[in-house]
Amino acid sequence: MPGAPPQSPDSPGDRKGRGRLAIIAGGGGLPHHVAAAARAHGENPYIIALTGEAGDGWDGYDRRTLGIGNFRDISATFRTEGIDRVVLSGGVQRRPEWRDIRPTLKTLSRVPAVLKTLISGGDDAVLKMAIALIEASGARVIGVQEIVPDLLAEIGRIGRIAPDDDDLRDIAAATAAANALGALDVGQGAIAVGGRVVALEGPEGTDAMLARVAGLRRDGRISQRRRGVLVKLCKPQQDLRADLPSIGPSTVESALAAGLAGIAVEAGRALILERAATIERADRSGLFVTGLDRARPVS
Amino acid sequence: MPGAPPQSPDSPGDRKGRGRLAIIAGGGGLPHHVAAAARAHGENPYIIALTGEAGDGWDGYDRRTLGIGNFRDISATFRTEGIDRVVLSGGVQRRPEWRDIRPTLKTLSRVPAVLKTLISGGDDAVLKMAIALIEASGARVIGVQEIVPDLLAEIGRIGRIAPDDDDLRDIAAATAAANALGALDVGQGAIAVGGRVVALEGPEGTDAMLARVAGLRRDGRISQRRRGVLVKLCKPQQDLRADLPSIGPSTVESALAAGLAGIAVEAGRALILERAATIERADRSGLFVTGLDRARPVS
Repeated sequence: MPGAPPQSPDSPGDRKGRGRLAIIAGGGGLPHHVAAAARAHGENPYIIALTGEAGDGWDGYDRRTLGIGNFRDISATFRTEGIDRVVLSGGVQRRPEWRDIRPTLKTLSRVPAVLKTLISGGDDAVLKMAIALIEASGARVIGVQEIVPDLLAEIGRIGRIAPDDDDLRDIAAATAAANALGALDVGQGAIAVGGRVVALEGPEGTDAMLARVAGLRRDGRISQRRRGVLVKLCKPQQDLRADLPSIGPSTVESALAAGLAGIAVEAGRALILERAATIERADRSGLFVTGLDRARPVS
Repeated sequence: MPGAPPQSPDSPGDRKGRGRLAIIAGGGGLPHHVAAAARAHGENPYIIALTGEAGDGWDGYDRRTLGIGNFRDISATFRTEGIDRVVLSGGVQRRPEWRDIRPTLKTLSRVPAVLKTLISGGDDAVLKMAIALIEASGARVIGVQEIVPDLLAEIGRIGRIAPDDDDLRDIAAATAAANALGALDVGQGAIAVGGRVVALEGPEGTDAMLARVAGLRRDGRISQRRRGVLVKLCKPQQDLRADLPSIGPSTVESALAAGLAGIAVEAGRALILERAATIERADRSGLFVTGLDRARPVS
């Protein structure tokens, strides 16, 4: 294995005889939460911030900014930093173009397949490929929940408010739509109002979908008197080491602006960021947040 | 039957011994095309323009503006005008609220079911209900294609340009998504780029969905080098007397702005409005327009 853990006892990556943890950071607030939580769990994460994706605010962390297609330097970083575990965190809005791909010698033969996946694969296919390429570089890709299990949504009511019967019907309708979408590797989110699915999430993301529903509501194309719900699920075939669906305070704000009654996420496979702030904001606004048990669908 | 056809030989509705044709007109350009084409086919259509939905430009037609929930006056109009056939045409953006419902004595007992459907039914359920209520008033609802069959898309290339292999792959991906959506009674349209579904149509409509894709393209969230296609299909269970999916010159303009390669619609179950202008605009812009045979899916 290239990049064996450094042996020096004061190596920053030396924890229980293991190598160092790297966080490959895309956009949004999630990577910061993961990094802080990883520290709280005794890790000293090295941040690989993706060019054009990762935000600022990485002062105080060992870090490097690299293009997402630059496997050569990512692989070299794993070696020099003794990285043996990698968490992928945050959104990636732009797919790399062919000119961004800088393969290692080992991954050179994969380049044609890589390009094909980048061009025509669904998000899942791209993530699966990224995981395979990282693992070919000698590090293991793990799920954020293996580092920070308390980010995961639990089953049932989360916060003060519970969904009522109308909400349960909307949850069932949006869940059916999100599952159909997920099976096609299109998206993870759906919104139902009054039992009717009014929005399905594509690459625009959850906040943009909620803004669209707020607009439909303003235009009178959605009943003013029915509130509705946002449902976010894992895709059925989703690799749990890839970015899990997540919500946070901004999701609650956008759901409120869209006139929704609440948010339902898949328990055990969706993340609640800034949990205290998210729940406080939901409670204060009268929105429910609930964790769905995939084994027991709402009917 | 209330509203038997008038017997006077100079009655405007007296055509081959039948009653008069009514067009219940929602928004958009479609009702005008249907009315003009109906005239060209020897009909003298009476226009029931829906309040807040139908546009202007009905000079020269016998007409009345009525709320969509005003079954009482719609039914009375059928009687006084000798209307025995009705075409539903154009979009309905706002569903009536309970206070808009003015039932006839005959439909009074249906009001609770009507309200339930208005509040929680999909578009198909609402249309099915509207058709049942109109037919309870003594007129037969017919499809626009029974009056103007030349509006229907045919199988295969329509216009000068044909889809290439990449386009066929996008058509297959978007068709699978549109079918999944349609089975859920959510929408009729989907857009795929580079084999990947990037947008699914909800109540916002096709033009708004295309504008969203144009935005995703500008933001670099969709490859700049892959063009992509718009697919519009009937929902599998759609009543063909309800509004069929349609395209027109503005669809071509929006598809062009979204960077797409072309548009595929379901042959025999989708309408091409302003056919000459639509095809001319598509040809001039290098976009294909093609009719899909549901019996022979693109693979």
